Amino acid sequence: MRLSGERFSVLYRIIGQDAGDCYAKAQDICYEQTVEFPPELVPAGFIMDEIVGRIESCQQINQTCCLAEISYAAETAAGELTQLLNVAFGNISIKPGIMVERLNLSPLLLSNFQGPRFGRSGLRQLLQAPNRPLLHTALKPMGLSAGELAKMAYQCAIGGIDIIKDDHGLTDQCFAPFDERVKRCAEAVATANIETKGNSIYVANVTAEPQETVRRARLAKEAGAQGLMIAPALTGLEVMRNLADDPTIALPVICHPAFGGSYVLGSGGISHYVLYGQIARLAGADASIYPNFGGRFSFSREECVNIALGTGEEMGHIKKIFPSPGGGMSLNSIPDSIEVYGNDVIFLIGGGLFRHGPDLVENCRYFRGLIDNYS
Amino acid sequence: MRLSGERFSVLYRIIGQDAGDCYAKAQDICYEQTVEFPPELVPAGFIMDEIVGRIESCQQINQTCCLAEISYAAETAAGELTQLLNVAFGNISIKPGIMVERLNLSPLLLSNFQGPRFGRSGLRQLLQAPNRPLLHTALKPMGLSAGELAKMAYQCAIGGIDIIKDDHGLTDQCFAPFDERVKRCAEAVATANIETKGNSIYVANVTAEPQETVRRARLAKEAGAQGLMIAPALTGLEVMRNLADDPTIALPVICHPAFGGSYVLGSGGISHYVLYGQIARLAGADASIYPNFGGRFSFSREECVNIALGTGEEMGHIKKIFPSPGGGMSLNSIPDSIEVYGNDVIFLIGGGLFRHGPDLVENCRYFRGLIDNYS
Repeated sequence: MRLSGERFSVLYRIIGQDAGDCYAKAQDICYEQTVEFPPELVPAGFIMDEIVGRIESCQQINQTCCLAEISYAAETAAGELTQLLNVAFGNISIKPGIMVERLNLSPLLLSNFQGPRFGRSGLRQLLQAPNRPLLHTALKPMGLSAGELAKMAYQCAIGGIDIIKDDHGLTDQCFAPFDERVKRCAEAVATANIETKGNSIYVANVTAEPQETVRRARLAKEAGAQGLMIAPALTGLEVMRNLADDPTIALPVICHPAFGGSYVLGSGGISHYVLYGQIARLAGADASIYPNFGGRFSFSREECVNIALGTGEEMGHIKKIFPSPGGGMSLNSIPDSIEVYGNDVIFLIGGGLFRHGPDLVENCRYFRGLIDNYS
Repeated sequence: MRLSGERFSVLYRIIGQDAGDCYAKAQDICYEQTVEFPPELVPAGFIMDEIVGRIESCQQINQTCCLAEISYAAETAAGELTQLLNVAFGNISIKPGIMVERLNLSPLLLSNFQGPRFGRSGLRQLLQAPNRPLLHTALKPMGLSAGELAKMAYQCAIGGIDIIKDDHGLTDQCFAPFDERVKRCAEAVATANIETKGNSIYVANVTAEPQETVRRARLAKEAGAQGLMIAPALTGLEVMRNLADDPTIALPVICHPAFGGSYVLGSGGISHYVLYGQIARLAGADASIYPNFGGRFSFSREECVNIALGTGEEMGHIKKIFPSPGGGMSLNSIPDSIEVYGNDVIFLIGGGLFRHGPDLVENCRYFRGLIDNYS
């Protein structure tokens, strides 16, 4: 068997008892993630030479932590996103102290992925906002009727919010069924756009099982929704990617982080850069939601810097996408966030939009005013 | 709006600075997982009374840890597995120190789920092994050709292994393409069964994007595979559930833990009981693979006891399934494992099967002999 010789690599942060232990763990990864076979029994030749992972470098960061770059033959991933992630972090997700810090994907592998359909520039074009930071809010709380949510969507659009999405907890509950909610909310935002000559979009949450996700996406598009939100840790990443790739849907896709936080909170797992940046892009998201620093979640400023980098750094033909940090937005916090993200950011403001004052439209205008300073 | 009044609950283990902090976190979960709205702004009446989660009990385990049972209206989950998991652990997956210890699902919610098609008794019937522990192995290493893997499958079946599955790293690589591999391996096991008058089954790994998973499952069935393996952390749980529910497929489904370990390794996440037991069952698995205690992974004996309980405790009409602990199987370790699992276990033996001696058939017979003592 001859392979192409093309390899991709994964940068791992490995915690061990000492340098020797860290290196031994890097060696273990080479086998665990490919042949999953005792090293002494791996057949010499093709399998040992080409299939087993290869330590390209191993840099000790401190006594108990190293950064190891391990490469794999491109063919081990079989051109599949599921198998790529399986090689990068399948079994070792069950071993403590191993963090995927970065994916370095080869052209051959990347050519299997279309990536985001819109990306930063496509989304800016749709919203007719060529330069400024964007604003994003969620319709909630769960328990409101479709009519009440639509009224809220109308007010947010009147107030100048760019992206008005379902809260990720709104799926198809009896109190606001998907089909009715989506029709009414899309209509409400369209009505407001006519009044304001604005370009707000309504984004429907289509998180469900695979076929139902597609059914909802199609219905949302027909109803006039101009974007889709999905939580891939609940649905599977490929369900999100199929939405993005489907030419009959062709709507922007926003990635919600629900149910996936465990990957970034441990001493092992997947780095913020990879999970909210690289993987979201590979799986077709145009924007990636996560909790901003300084809010009610625990992400640090540095972790958010890394997310911004992950959404924007070069990745072959895969488009750059928007980071969409949520929470903690205030007059005082915006300059610091702009310092981290620049203007290529979609601020997600949820509860704060309702807390600011009694009039939702005025609250929207206030926050819109804050970012219009950065045009 | 009137709801049914039926509620389900989630038992959380919460880490805080002290008892007051633990309780405040439990209160926060009630809002975060439902309305995601500042408590002071939640409308009184229906939403506050019915939609916001409710602390049913909160027991302080020690100074910095409590067990809180929080109930939710059944309707918040909308009859969807994705949304059930979103209510149980969506946003709070991104908050540190919160572990889902147990799901207590109501009859209304459970009625949405068919659960495993075979379960313990169905799988025992298929394998014609009414009482003894079962044996399970994986075809590997990656890099072998379809013919080489088929030869190995034949030998394992001759040697008396009950379930012979693809290694989870074998998907559709050029060196052993899915379609060819599955046909040859299924045929090899069928041939061996004729010779031995045995009932070994070949299980194909169908982990891929949703439509391709179904295509591969159908092809596997046609080729004579008698089971399917899938890694739901890579595909999405609903992809596994659809396989199990599909009456045109109707094969046993084995759940592989790849890419999902981060849920169980942190101070927050999802307990072994819930992830490998309850969730696997809700999502249709007939057997749940995980690393056994005493092996090359880090699960403790107690964690494995909890997995065994999660696969076997009452859960309405949802069938009991097999725990399938992998790794570390030896003459010395079996009595301890039997003490944990009883006879209702599928021992997964991988590399060890090749390490024991030079003759694979003899090695299989050796391990089969070890468990035949427990008939």
